[in-house]
Amino acid sequence: MPRARLRDLGIVTGTLPPGQWNAITDVPGIRVGYTTLIDDTPSIIRTGVTAVWPRGPEIWTDAVFAGIHSFNGNGEMTGWAWIAEQGLLASPICITNTHSVGIVRDAICRLAARDKVEMPWLLPVVAETYDGWLNDAVSFPITTEHAIAALDCATTGPIAEGNVGGGTGMICHEFKGGTGTASRIVQTVGETYTIGALVQANYGSRDLLRIDGVPIGRELGPTEVPTPREAGSIIVILATDAPLLPIQCQRLARRATTGLAWVGGVGFNGSGDIFLAFATGNHVRASETISTLRMLSPDKMNALLQAAAETTEEAILNALCAAETMTGVHGHTAHELPLDTLVNVMQRYRPRPA
Amino acid sequence: MPRARLRDLGIVTGTLPPGQWNAITDVPGIRVGYTTLIDDTPSIIRTGVTAVWPRGPEIWTDAVFAGIHSFNGNGEMTGWAWIAEQGLLASPICITNTHSVGIVRDAICRLAARDKVEMPWLLPVVAETYDGWLNDAVSFPITTEHAIAALDCATTGPIAEGNVGGGTGMICHEFKGGTGTASRIVQTVGETYTIGALVQANYGSRDLLRIDGVPIGRELGPTEVPTPREAGSIIVILATDAPLLPIQCQRLARRATTGLAWVGGVGFNGSGDIFLAFATGNHVRASETISTLRMLSPDKMNALLQAAAETTEEAILNALCAAETMTGVHGHTAHELPLDTLVNVMQRYRPRPA
Amino acid sequence: MPRARLRDLGIVTGTLPPGQWNAITDVPGIRVGYTTLIDDTPSIIRTGVTAVWPRGPEIWTDAVFAGIHSFNGNGEMTGWAWIAEQGLLASPICITNTHSVGIVRDAICRLAARDKVEMPWLLPVVAETYDGWLNDAVSFPITTEHAIAALDCATTGPIAEGNVGGGTGMICHEFKGGTGTASRIVQTVGETYTIGALVQANYGSRDLLRIDGVPIGRELGPTEVPTPREAGSIIVILATDAPLLPIQCQRLARRATTGLAWVGGVGFNGSGDIFLAFATGNHVRASETISTLRMLSPDKMNALLQAAAETTEEAILNALCAAETMTGVHGHTAHELPLDTLVNVMQRYRPRPA
Amino acid sequence: MPRARLRDLGIVTGTLPPGQWNAITDVPGIRVGYTTLIDDTPSIIRTGVTAVWPRGPEIWTDAVFAGIHSFNGNGEMTGWAWIAEQGLLASPICITNTHSVGIVRDAICRLAARDKVEMPWLLPVVAETYDGWLNDAVSFPITTEHAIAALDCATTGPIAEGNVGGGTGMICHEFKGGTGTASRIVQTVGETYTIGALVQANYGSRDLLRIDGVPIGRELGPTEVPTPREAGSIIVILATDAPLLPIQCQRLARRATTGLAWVGGVGFNGSGDIFLAFATGNHVRASETISTLRMLSPDKMNALLQAAAETTEEAILNALCAAETMTGVHGHTAHELPLDTLVNVMQRYRPRPA
Repeated sequence: MPRARLRDLGIVTGTLPPGQWNAITDVPGIRVGYTTLIDDTPSIIRTGVTAVWPRGPEIWTDAVFAGIHSFNGNGEMTGWAWIAEQGLLASPICITNTHSVGIVRDAICRLAARDKVEMPWLLPVVAETYDGWLNDAVSFPITTEHAIAALDCATTGPIAEGNVGGGTGMICHEFKGGTGTASRIVQTVGETYTIGALVQANYGSRDLLRIDGVPIGRELGPTEVPTPREAGSIIVILATDAPLLPIQCQRLARRATTGLAWVGGVGFNGSGDIFLAFATGNHVRASETISTLRMLSPDKMNALLQAAAETTEEAILNALCAAETMTGVHGHTAHELPLDTLVNVMQRYRPRPA
Repeated sequence: MPRARLRDLGIVTGTLPPGQWNAITDVPGIRVGYTTLIDDTPSIIRTGVTAVWPRGPEIWTDAVFAGIHSFNGNGEMTGWAWIAEQGLLASPICITNTHSVGIVRDAICRLAARDKVEMPWLLPVVAETYDGWLNDAVSFPITTEHAIAALDCATTGPIAEGNVGGGTGMICHEFKGGTGTASRIVQTVGETYTIGALVQANYGSRDLLRIDGVPIGRELGPTEVPTPREAGSIIVILATDAPLLPIQCQRLARRATTGLAWVGGVGFNGSGDIFLAFATGNHVRASETISTLRMLSPDKMNALLQAAAETTEEAILNALCAAETMTGVHGHTAHELPLDTLVNVMQRYRPRPA
Repeated sequence: MPRARLRDLGIVTGTLPPGQWNAITDVPGIRVGYTTLIDDTPSIIRTGVTAVWPRGPEIWTDAVFAGIHSFNGNGEMTGWAWIAEQGLLASPICITNTHSVGIVRDAICRLAARDKVEMPWLLPVVAETYDGWLNDAVSFPITTEHAIAALDCATTGPIAEGNVGGGTGMICHEFKGGTGTASRIVQTVGETYTIGALVQANYGSRDLLRIDGVPIGRELGPTEVPTPREAGSIIVILATDAPLLPIQCQRLARRATTGLAWVGGVGFNGSGDIFLAFATGNHVRASETISTLRMLSPDKMNALLQAAAETTEEAILNALCAAETMTGVHGHTAHELPLDTLVNVMQRYRPRPA
Repeated sequence: MPRARLRDLGIVTGTLPPGQWNAITDVPGIRVGYTTLIDDTPSIIRTGVTAVWPRGPEIWTDAVFAGIHSFNGNGEMTGWAWIAEQGLLASPICITNTHSVGIVRDAICRLAARDKVEMPWLLPVVAETYDGWLNDAVSFPITTEHAIAALDCATTGPIAEGNVGGGTGMICHEFKGGTGTASRIVQTVGETYTIGALVQANYGSRDLLRIDGVPIGRELGPTEVPTPREAGSIIVILATDAPLLPIQCQRLARRATTGLAWVGGVGFNGSGDIFLAFATGNHVRASETISTLRMLSPDKMNALLQAAAETTEEAILNALCAAETMTGVHGHTAHELPLDTLVNVMQRYRPRPA
């Protein structure tokens, strides 16, 4: 069976409807780009860079509100202190492998210089997960140019999943992991909001993996060759066009924990489970001394909170369904989640009639 | 079918083994006591106080390490600032209804004065959930004596669940909720640790309720008469005898989020989802200028982290299974989770053979 | 020399101009009330309650944004979790002694019930400092009525300082401490904002006390009879009419640390140094599903940040200048800061001409 | 008058005694190294890298406890999430300019690879302040080799101050700023502890600068040519050999705010005021499953807390006293603090006899 998205297999998680592409790019203005590096010479490279633009290039002067939650902080997300302090995000975001956070972070400064952004300094947001089980990470293959290429090629519309961008060398619940995305449409207070997630999924043990409650990991049994179980990480980027304040974005970010739990992630010690949520529904322009804002009443956030959990859950599962078996350094092979078996197991767990 | 604990129904969640009582009191030294107030005159009272002693009375001079996590802070836990600052807990904990947090908190100060505790001041930990849908909360029925009675009657060994103590008037996933408990035994680094949870469960919507992944809430269908769905709260107290530092207790507390998610809690806006974890494995005596401590390596915490999630999950389900239908103010009735139907549904979701 | 305010002594700290009353009540709408309990029978009582209304009674349905910072958390501020989560404050604030936080907290719930506030539950903000060196705290003299009286008598305009309200039994830098207030006017972005502080000052060692940089504590020498040095606490309430978001209120609250440092407070272990800032410049009405807000650009906050430090500094000094010598339990006497000596010392430290 | 350290000018701030070198290197095992880049071709370079080793190379497998505080988060300190989560620091620290945080951060990964450190991944701590007013930052002059050179040349004993390392292009209180250090010896509980600070000082407005309470900035008058006032940042590294837990290191870090306030820093919006404290008094070895620790009683931390403030204060002043006038890009000149005038002003503020 060819790789597919979860819904294409007839499996629906959650109750809220997805957007047009069931992707973070359903949130208007969001752009995603990838640089994917797969090479066998001079060393075995399985890595890349994922870029997410919260708006188009106007982000440099038209900030979005943002908030971060660290469920388990064995990871890196640069730019943290400033988002925690001010709640504003005014630059694109990248995700890459652990050893390359730095060069990718500085690359965003270089991009800003190239594009004549009028800011004395920048505190870019770059996060990571570790791909050294498949990728020769200590060869430091990612360059400034790779990062800028991912940023430059970012587009709206449907986006690739699985072994792409920063997600190229990932392992998730002891299957091949990677990049995944999903979205939800929320109707509240007479308005329609979209919320989308993009994950770089690289965490978890197989026995805890569940899909819509079904213990699929236990059913599929242990791996023949041990893969990293208790290390790894997951980065979740949540985007919405709802008019939220920074403190509300923090709340949204915290709900990625819930979606992660539904799939079977418990935040093992070695995992960097760090979640960023941003909201494009307000504009904070560099030229303004007073900004006029709208705030969705906290009382009316429940559907968004649930949607944050649902998109995280489905984005992880989409990463698993899209990622293909990969062999990397040291002869390590991470096997893809077998979709035909998956469908069979889900069938076996269908409830009998009442 | 009489009320029962989840395991007595043949339903096992999680993979780690429980302790002797499958209760927080499996952690050596922990004592739990209740004052339960159920009365129809002069007003309809359905409330109470739960007391948890981290050690016996020696707690006043032999502190435990502790850490707090607020998943959704629409609630109260007094003593927060000091635990966040210092990571020490040197007094018993109470849980009660929202309107009585204050009197119960001061009662712990009065108890210390009564028992000649030599401390100039105390910053007691008292948490709450709201029972005003069943209880005439604005009659403020809880007194200092009620709180002290719960503290004084606390014991080790098996403890009551359901409509007892602070959990008396709770509603959970639109069923009758209340107090619940569970425990797990963890083997690691050649040592055996116990971890236990006690919850006061008063949150959640029915359609999200799951047991071992089975969407039991959807199967049982909506309530005939609406009950509070998006308000409510859950307090989780996690205890362990592992030798953890304060920062490790914070990590443990955060895993209650995972167990809550497994049952279907997403932290709605109106919910005060606040989690306290403490560890008795070290002793910090008031008389010491230097304390000698042991620390379990963070790398070896994974089973404890998973166990924190598992105990939270099962403690909530035990609360649901124990709590009995209750009619309170305004003729409101919260219906118990029907155990026979529950067993039937779980049966229908048993997987077919491969 | 009679007690006086710092500026009445010709001593000016900071550079920004104060408001009309040099008080937190310069911020439009803020009301302050006190209950002061001084009695010698049946026991020696030196305590009270301070009430601060962020708006008039409309606060119950027209919330202000708020943020908290704990510089040293050996103290209590109830309501913390919800302000940290949501950033909204929709009830009056009280400050009292440590043993009475609870009864005063519940009293605000009772007041809401009395005044038919339509809210299912409340999470009131009540903070404390410890007055047991002068006050027979373990007699628990404060009642619900005392708290409600402070709330009911709150007014705008000039307010009392020194031995009043919750500040009645305080000790500060080993002098008699108490309640103090100050304000600043800030011009920025073509608008005029007022920021005010109210402190309950009960911390610090004499040798660190400074006024406008002058080491007044060292000059005045040690106390003859030891007073509490390293215990004690300070609560700071900062109010402004600037249009700030919750995350900006948190930043403001953090600057109380700076003002405290200027007076000589270093946050000793026994001190509960907890700071709350709220901003009335936006209205979040309970009836709204979408609120329209204004936000002062973070880039334009500098004068407000400095003003937060300046008002904290001067409010502490006003507390010291207003408080009069008090004898309390166990024959303990806390001596007032001697104003004539103070003026002499400040004169001796005047710079010589260049 | 040649550049000198503050105490060499006869000016003593604080009351606790300094260590042998009055430097962070008074804490046994701490090593500091610099790479200083000053060049006029091909572009005007005034920048560098500062390296701090918490222990010698054994740090890779023998971690120290650590804690971070962000007083104003307009800055970057990588590694934050993991220190916040686990409280362990197992790698050297660097400080550099804003645009080069990334390359320096990755350089620590490369150093670990070079030196065969057996760790799958690293989350290095690298902080920054902005030097673009004097340095051609957008030429990105700092290389991997520069960072490794600073790490490799680190030594114990007395260390350089002023225009060295990451502090090369700094401006502080509108004077030439840079790198500074100081230390204090604390006697408590029958033990002797050393605490040291190293700062990269690049913040502040001249009118707020104070030395031992004397308003030296106002006395010296405004700059002729405007320098950056409200931007800039300060990084503070605090080290001690006291046996502190991570949560106690966080408390220590927070006291840098106090020392900063004493010099006149209020944390303007544009400032990244981020403080890291670590304690070498415990050993957490990678090979251990249970570590045996000592903890100084929180009650006995007061002298250390005050010492943290004092060392921060004096380290900033040492940076100002050491830094020499520098001309950089765009003909910008940052003038050194004139020491002869400083001494005169301090003399004028000497108190008259009582």
